Amino acid sequence: MGKTAEIIAIGSELLTPQRLDTNSLTITEQLNLLGVDVVGKHIIGDDRNLLTDAIRAAMNRSAIVILSGGLGPTEDDVTRDAAAAALGRKLVLSLEQESVLINRFRQINRPMAANNLRQAYVIEGAEVMPNPNGTAPGQFLFTDRGVLALLPGPPRELRPMLIDELIPRLRPVLPVQVIKVRTFRITGIGESDLDTLIAPVYTKYQNPATTVLSAPGDLFVHLRAVAPTEKEADELLREVGNPIAELVGAKIYSEDPEESLDAVVARLLRKSHATVATAESASGGLVAARLTDLGGSSSYFVAGYVTYTDQQKIEMLGVSPSLIQKNTAVSQPVAAAMAEGARKKSGATYAISVTGYAGPSGGTEYDPVGTVFIGLAGPEGTRVVRYRYGVGRDRVRALAVQHSLDLLRRTLLRIEN
Amino acid sequence: MGKTAEIIAIGSELLTPQRLDTNSLTITEQLNLLGVDVVGKHIIGDDRNLLTDAIRAAMNRSAIVILSGGLGPTEDDVTRDAAAAALGRKLVLSLEQESVLINRFRQINRPMAANNLRQAYVIEGAEVMPNPNGTAPGQFLFTDRGVLALLPGPPRELRPMLIDELIPRLRPVLPVQVIKVRTFRITGIGESDLDTLIAPVYTKYQNPATTVLSAPGDLFVHLRAVAPTEKEADELLREVGNPIAELVGAKIYSEDPEESLDAVVARLLRKSHATVATAESASGGLVAARLTDLGGSSSYFVAGYVTYTDQQKIEMLGVSPSLIQKNTAVSQPVAAAMAEGARKKSGATYAISVTGYAGPSGGTEYDPVGTVFIGLAGPEGTRVVRYRYGVGRDRVRALAVQHSLDLLRRTLLRIEN
Repeated sequence: MGKTAEIIAIGSELLTPQRLDTNSLTITEQLNLLGVDVVGKHIIGDDRNLLTDAIRAAMNRSAIVILSGGLGPTEDDVTRDAAAAALGRKLVLSLEQESVLINRFRQINRPMAANNLRQAYVIEGAEVMPNPNGTAPGQFLFTDRGVLALLPGPPRELRPMLIDELIPRLRPVLPVQVIKVRTFRITGIGESDLDTLIAPVYTKYQNPATTVLSAPGDLFVHLRAVAPTEKEADELLREVGNPIAELVGAKIYSEDPEESLDAVVARLLRKSHATVATAESASGGLVAARLTDLGGSSSYFVAGYVTYTDQQKIEMLGVSPSLIQKNTAVSQPVAAAMAEGARKKSGATYAISVTGYAGPSGGTEYDPVGTVFIGLAGPEGTRVVRYRYGVGRDRVRALAVQHSLDLLRRTLLRIEN
Repeated sequence: MGKTAEIIAIGSELLTPQRLDTNSLTITEQLNLLGVDVVGKHIIGDDRNLLTDAIRAAMNRSAIVILSGGLGPTEDDVTRDAAAAALGRKLVLSLEQESVLINRFRQINRPMAANNLRQAYVIEGAEVMPNPNGTAPGQFLFTDRGVLALLPGPPRELRPMLIDELIPRLRPVLPVQVIKVRTFRITGIGESDLDTLIAPVYTKYQNPATTVLSAPGDLFVHLRAVAPTEKEADELLREVGNPIAELVGAKIYSEDPEESLDAVVARLLRKSHATVATAESASGGLVAARLTDLGGSSSYFVAGYVTYTDQQKIEMLGVSPSLIQKNTAVSQPVAAAMAEGARKKSGATYAISVTGYAGPSGGTEYDPVGTVFIGLAGPEGTRVVRYRYGVGRDRVRALAVQHSLDLLRRTLLRIEN
């Protein structure tokens, strides 16, 4: 059987300006792990004829065709009909499925409307894939040229059915191969600088395939290797990943794709039995919010001070009025004094400070909008770093949050500059 | 000419598990405003043959076909070739476009690589749509059955070209009609309760079409009316919108689709020359971050206290130790004392407090995980509201932020309960 797939998402609500089909990302991820490439994705409204044509065309091009949505009980739910029509097969009532439905409604103690029976019809020759999270079962069948699968639309129903039912049915009919992934999470370098640095390494390889993704202050490098054995896939990831790791160095904060920068900082704080406080001006509480994002954060987060005015910097943090007067509130000395004040008042091991011009207005000739001072006070003393982020209030605040967490990470790991 | 459209996004990166095509939302929004329905969206990789077939099939079904992406200078950029092939037309070198390109590279003082000349080729009979934000021009042409447009992929190039070039070319060839939209932004009620409340009104009408969208603590009701004249469209929006407005009442915080709850609160604070401070435990700084989200927020935001531990509630806010001991830190009296303490310490007109069990652990028999007390101290006295949000740390925090901002909004508007 071939190794290309197409995905068709069904539902008129997915053709409005407000909604995207995100199921296809989950499906693509799982198919890629089997070595299957997705060559086309389609979104079709609740229109039986258009959908029939789309299914037929996709089956002509691709061995694997996966449909999501349109399996509900109403007239708008046309996927079963359209798939049967595209295959030239009939829909037949599954007595087993009928009793599953009846039992389900009995359990939740609600009467079953007549149209629910539509969900008990399956395409001739299809295998039913049970849906423990909803009333619409999935369907799986072999066609002349490959495989067709019908999955429910709600992500919390689709995902378990995909992983527990569909993928195990696909695996045995696909050629054996192993996909392995390696991810670097990186901060403290811009996307284009990162790419300039590592492109000479990764562009030499089609396999592993390399993808660079970016959010403000947060970059991902994904390597994806395909090989006949796990050993060979690992070897490919080492061959490309190790030189990248060496070039990027300590700017890599995690190789776990799910571990965010705040999670890394939380892990390091716990490990060294240290605590942290925050003194924020420009970032307005965002650093504190990130540091309390995880459950159990009270074991390392002590206190946060959002000091938006000069007066609050003086009253809440004990910054000296003359220091502000001499240097302005956005300055190296005030950032240092804010961090030191927060550390002293809270009794935390470390204190982070952020003061800057987030914009759109503010700034001086020497320190224009986008200038942010990030300070860190700790047992080893106080460090302050000046950043120039340019314009864009949300972006400036997001970058300041990442870089202040990173300053703490580097300090906890004793990484110089 | 017919009034249905299909959109094809081109690019292999859009078929990875990490990326979604978001251009189609912008395109759909603009087409809907012209009364055009999008009946299908497709995402195709950088494959000339698959793309040619997809374009041909879309043109057979729909009068308007819009392509985005694949107009760059490299071998991977196959959209021009595929569109020409689907139409059975030739690509011809546009001397005008060639000189635009040469000038552009001269302006940025960079040599023009030979492959850039690919971007000067246009389909026979196509009109060039200039691209002030990049090197790839767009193309527009009439086909036997309608219209085909080629737009560049980067959103900051696509959006201006769509609005300034493509829509003005489409408008004259479509039947005259007016689309008007009315939006309600709502908080303080759950999605299903809202739907139960307003469905009896809106389900009686196909026009205006009603959509309900939801984020934690933030609901949108969109009405979209289509009519031959503006007056008739307005009449339809009143007919359905006014009864909805009456039913939902003060839970509607704005009818401006772009005005977030923090923007409403900011507007009301400015209007009444009032200031605000925050005392946060469970929300860890998120309320302060929201209140400082807008430029110029220093005119109403004074100070934020993130008091994660009992000791900090005592030290930073002056909450009495015996009050905490008697009631626990998550209680009505402590929420009141936190708000009053923050108000007193900061000198702000109002102070918001949030204390609760965000989870996943914590909670008591009477106040399980998800219980949050939100307090507001002001010149009129102190109010505390208890919420039971259930599980999900992110969701609990997001709901607490919305409801604390809403408590301030209601107080500023003197809305009872």
